[in-house]
Amino acid sequence: MKFNPNLEAIKTYEGGKPIELVIREYGIKAQDIVKLASNENPFGVSPKVEKALQENAKNVFMYPDDSMLTLKSALCKKFHIQKENLIIGAGSDQVIFFAIQAKAHANMKILTAKTTFAMYDIYGKQAGATMLKTPSDQHVLSEFLEVYEANRDIDIIFLCLPNNPLGECLPREEVYAFLEKIESNTLVVIDGAYQDFASAKDEAMQIKPAELIEQFPNTLYLGTFSKSYALGGLRVGYGIAQKDIMITLYKMRPPFNVTALSLVAAVAALEDESFVEKTIQNNFQEMQKYECFAKENQIDFIDSYTNFITLLFDDLHSSKDIAQILLKKGIIIRDLTSYGINGIRVTIGTPTQNDRFLEEFAKIYN
Amino acid sequence: MKFNPNLEAIKTYEGGKPIELVIREYGIKAQDIVKLASNENPFGVSPKVEKALQENAKNVFMYPDDSMLTLKSALCKKFHIQKENLIIGAGSDQVIFFAIQAKAHANMKILTAKTTFAMYDIYGKQAGATMLKTPSDQHVLSEFLEVYEANRDIDIIFLCLPNNPLGECLPREEVYAFLEKIESNTLVVIDGAYQDFASAKDEAMQIKPAELIEQFPNTLYLGTFSKSYALGGLRVGYGIAQKDIMITLYKMRPPFNVTALSLVAAVAALEDESFVEKTIQNNFQEMQKYECFAKENQIDFIDSYTNFITLLFDDLHSSKDIAQILLKKGIIIRDLTSYGINGIRVTIGTPTQNDRFLEEFAKIYN
Repeated sequence: MKFNPNLEAIKTYEGGKPIELVIREYGIKAQDIVKLASNENPFGVSPKVEKALQENAKNVFMYPDDSMLTLKSALCKKFHIQKENLIIGAGSDQVIFFAIQAKAHANMKILTAKTTFAMYDIYGKQAGATMLKTPSDQHVLSEFLEVYEANRDIDIIFLCLPNNPLGECLPREEVYAFLEKIESNTLVVIDGAYQDFASAKDEAMQIKPAELIEQFPNTLYLGTFSKSYALGGLRVGYGIAQKDIMITLYKMRPPFNVTALSLVAAVAALEDESFVEKTIQNNFQEMQKYECFAKENQIDFIDSYTNFITLLFDDLHSSKDIAQILLKKGIIIRDLTSYGINGIRVTIGTPTQNDRFLEEFAKIYN
Repeated sequence: MKFNPNLEAIKTYEGGKPIELVIREYGIKAQDIVKLASNENPFGVSPKVEKALQENAKNVFMYPDDSMLTLKSALCKKFHIQKENLIIGAGSDQVIFFAIQAKAHANMKILTAKTTFAMYDIYGKQAGATMLKTPSDQHVLSEFLEVYEANRDIDIIFLCLPNNPLGECLPREEVYAFLEKIESNTLVVIDGAYQDFASAKDEAMQIKPAELIEQFPNTLYLGTFSKSYALGGLRVGYGIAQKDIMITLYKMRPPFNVTALSLVAAVAALEDESFVEKTIQNNFQEMQKYECFAKENQIDFIDSYTNFITLLFDDLHSSKDIAQILLKKGIIIRDLTSYGINGIRVTIGTPTQNDRFLEEFAKIYN
């Protein structure tokens, strides 16, 4: 059978190893496993969310409220925007997909940093786009501008701020100065999946979606419930943009794209901001342990504005080998070899999880 | 901003009115509302599913197991297939989308019955496909063959068996005889969302996916958990096909496309077959009430192999007006005016719901 030629080159995405698989493969007990691979919330789920899910379990025979009115109202209030500026996706992933499809055409061009969220590339290739990348791994806006000026007809630029899987961020003022130079037909996607971590660490990094889309009508801001709001398993994210962009994104949205329980959980999560605050406070307090350890052991690391830290190894150490040894001990982290980087990305966990990681890592890394 | 030209003509899908909206708009009490609009399971959710959801609510901070191993094993056992023949979607809707994208190219052609599931058309247009339709509303295979022979290069044929929103079905033997005449490069999608209702009513309508894909390697079978398994709110469906088709469908699948709780619920639902049996038994017993009423009142109806019945009105009655009057009384059904049909689709409910509908409907229809 003949298939869509755009799909030929696509490799299937592989996420982090789920705990079940490690238990099965290495015979490790569930309670001994420390998963610091997927930037999930180490405190589990907010009690308010758990309660809301339990109360609504009996209603799942009904299709979701496709207007998503309650969640939209809550997000509009949080971000000071109108409903017509908002779309909810099955994870912010899905909004990335909508955005790429919304701009798709035969000679599409997309620009990203060299090392950034893998889905830009995968969804871009599905649409047959030419993917352009900056020379540096991390976001360097002068490099973005250079590629942009050399290719005036770029359809979408993705800025992942802060960047996953590396952790760096850019000050809002620099981003705004960059956006001034971009033409109105280029969609600039600001992926703010980790923005609440970045804003908490340094207010200068904060991008407020209402201000952003008012000043730059060609931008799309993305947010997620998977990180600080602890709903990775339920797939809820959102996009914020001007109405003309929204109208086209909605044409790609399948009906009932967010489950009934995901909607309920997201609303409950927004009502428990103290859980998010606790998460963020723990995050940067615990991150110091990693930074101290790295400095003491002369390990390079990227100053992180997220809930993970990226450690970069010298030639004497292989991230692939280290990840494998840790895995056999029940510690799951993200090896960055597939990104062409000899390093690992470690989610900041609970104090106990971090101590366990650092203890085992110290035994290996010497 | 310039957008994907394929999207210009697309209208946003409108699902059935959610209960909340009726409560709000017409000031009707929640307990007085009878929703027979979305072919949901009238018995609510299986107690086993409710329990599984409640127990797993605490785990939603973790990403779903993207291998979906437990659910896949259960479905493979049920259908006597291998894992390599199976893909799980966020509803069978999503597998329809994957299938269309998998075959997409610049001059794509898709063939469907005139009146069938709306998403074939919407996803087809997103991909820029030319949509060909048979002259008759219901599935008539000789008409499919006629259009097919006149357009040898058709990429996908959709057969919705039984058909939503009309309810008719076709015997397996007729379908197989039709498939014999279709070339191997044309993908034939057999949408079996309501197959368990059809099989229970008449074994001759049953299409077994393992047999289907073995005899016809160019077919894709679709199933869903939204109807008899009562998980409409959680979006779980699946596709079954030969491996070469599956490999391409997987290239379109976004990671974590099914939520953690949806996976848990689907596994629990498969373990409660007695709930499904009760659902199907009630369905055809209660459908007789509708058929009797229709015959007594000289209302045309389509012999239904599903969990709904389609009533066709004469020129003296307007389905649009009748639906509107019922809505104000808190009874939500599906008006078929948007399909160009003067009729309504009514989900078979519990005995109490059906009696309430028929009582109110009798007052209007005279």
